[in-house]
Amino acid sequence: MEYPYPIKIRAVWWDNNRVCWIDTSKLPFEEKIYCTDDPERLAKAIITMEIRGAPAIGVAAALGVAAYALKISSTNREEFVKRVEEAIKTLWNTRPTAHNLFWALTRMRNTLKTSIDEELSPTDIAERLRREALEIMDEDIRANIRMGEYGAELVPDNATILTHCNAGALATAAFGTAEGVMRVAWYKGKKIRVIATETRPVLQGARLTVWELMKEGIPVTLITDNMAGYVIRRGMVDLVIVGADRVTREGYVINKIGTYMIALAAKRNNVPFYVAAPTSTIDLNSSIDDVVIEERDPEEVKKVLGRPITLENADALNYAFDITDPDLVTAIITEKGVVKPPYPENLKRIVGSQG
Amino acid sequence: MEYPYPIKIRAVWWDNNRVCWIDTSKLPFEEKIYCTDDPERLAKAIITMEIRGAPAIGVAAALGVAAYALKISSTNREEFVKRVEEAIKTLWNTRPTAHNLFWALTRMRNTLKTSIDEELSPTDIAERLRREALEIMDEDIRANIRMGEYGAELVPDNATILTHCNAGALATAAFGTAEGVMRVAWYKGKKIRVIATETRPVLQGARLTVWELMKEGIPVTLITDNMAGYVIRRGMVDLVIVGADRVTREGYVINKIGTYMIALAAKRNNVPFYVAAPTSTIDLNSSIDDVVIEERDPEEVKKVLGRPITLENADALNYAFDITDPDLVTAIITEKGVVKPPYPENLKRIVGSQG
Repeated sequence: MEYPYPIKIRAVWWDNNRVCWIDTSKLPFEEKIYCTDDPERLAKAIITMEIRGAPAIGVAAALGVAAYALKISSTNREEFVKRVEEAIKTLWNTRPTAHNLFWALTRMRNTLKTSIDEELSPTDIAERLRREALEIMDEDIRANIRMGEYGAELVPDNATILTHCNAGALATAAFGTAEGVMRVAWYKGKKIRVIATETRPVLQGARLTVWELMKEGIPVTLITDNMAGYVIRRGMVDLVIVGADRVTREGYVINKIGTYMIALAAKRNNVPFYVAAPTSTIDLNSSIDDVVIEERDPEEVKKVLGRPITLENADALNYAFDITDPDLVTAIITEKGVVKPPYPENLKRIVGSQG
Repeated sequence: MEYPYPIKIRAVWWDNNRVCWIDTSKLPFEEKIYCTDDPERLAKAIITMEIRGAPAIGVAAALGVAAYALKISSTNREEFVKRVEEAIKTLWNTRPTAHNLFWALTRMRNTLKTSIDEELSPTDIAERLRREALEIMDEDIRANIRMGEYGAELVPDNATILTHCNAGALATAAFGTAEGVMRVAWYKGKKIRVIATETRPVLQGARLTVWELMKEGIPVTLITDNMAGYVIRRGMVDLVIVGADRVTREGYVINKIGTYMIALAAKRNNVPFYVAAPTSTIDLNSSIDDVVIEERDPEEVKKVLGRPITLENADALNYAFDITDPDLVTAIITEKGVVKPPYPENLKRIVGSQG
């Protein structure tokens, strides 16, 4: 595939009929790569956050279904269909909040259904699934690049951008959503700087965003999550750009825990707060009341990189995401254009349109 | 000394003409105690945060001046005065933000001056300094208890209190400011629960607040700093209570980095935001423009408990405190009563009054 910008980092890719990924849980200390055609192994990689970031999870799940279908394509048709459906179910149940996972697996399931209706052989169905998964991956990268181009228009020269977590190449198939905007601005010659929050408990900012931006050569400064408000209040931030795990039809943004407080600080200090999200993240069928906020193992909070930071018998809570109200969001950057309030009607219009 | 409530934990105390402290930088993993009459050793303990928390720093500095004065009281008068003044200067230059440090050292310097004017001998001056330092320590504990009694009136039964950092026994001579309010509410039979933020980079919440409240038997749940907004938004928090390193005459609250974003989330969700601060923390002479926000070594941000969380050559920022605007503060709890807006006049009235 040819893209208009360099693709230096990939989180998830296809190699020799297997899905491959860089284990982001070990970065930047180890650069480990795994490949598999086993849905259980892939599910484990998603649950333990070897693969993380809503778009990357969606792409990986699609590729995983295809790899498994190719592997079992010599079995009889009934058994083949049953097992592919089981694989889809296994991957569906890995993480509850990201919309892209369900969106990508629904596309794979629809492809399976259509192929069954057409009475294709398992080998032909597997080939269809492979093509669909690769299409999903390619669409993700192209969507990120287009999002980057739309978003870069919003970035002034010499701007300092604050971001949270990692919405970069390591959260997508490649290029990134929030970091995609930074990349296009940078490639177009804008002298940007980035302030990255460390993003406890799993430290995606300190481990992934810093690593990814340093590889790209974009100046980046690390802060603790609780410093974001103060650097915004001091006037050190020109705009905030974050990714999203899900955007509801009303424009609520579900993203990494901590996003909400950054949005509050941005609003208070009149700093624009942008969300970069492909339309695959926008769920017109779900209202804020339907969203399940994942609670993860409290041990992630009680430890840092596996080492205890509190008493062993301490109680802890671990919400993985939070909810940012629509009135705090200046605009949502998608691959089909920049969406501004009122979100209920404008999101509907853009998701429905041909991009 | 007799106090109306149990004093289970002390951060700083006087023993055999030396100042003693528990090394809070090692808690809860090691309970190390040190004693000294050497101002340089004490200054190091303050700089490296073996002793931390605005009131504890003030008390420790006062006791440190007294211990040193007693040690050198056999030298000639001129030399004695010169060296005590040098010790005050050494301790003055340890940390720039906490007001109590300057307040306590100013009291010690004034005692020194009065004693010089009265032409007392070094031995008698040292004894005066000892009495003044012990008085400062006792006043701190009594102020915390009175603050706790005023503050407990604001705590409903069955309330969940969110706190940040550690404004507890380990941040004062004993009993605590914010935690003093919790202690009195608890001793009076209110079934409170506490949500404690971990407080990066130095983890005073995870290490100290959890340890201190578990020792007291008060139920406590640990969260990451970036979860505070979401738990407030979910309606899980009835009130916020934090300490302060300094309150300006306008009512700006300078406290541990992250306080500002918690205050924004509390305001947004109509949750009361209280600051517990002895009047020694309130600086009527300083305006917000005079406040120096300490920047500490970026290595604290790049590491957790000494272990790297990012690339070695990454850039990082480390502001130790932030500024919360007066309109975000529901009330300031002092040992002389609860101060409500408008702060400029009401702070002046309470600090000036006889407690």
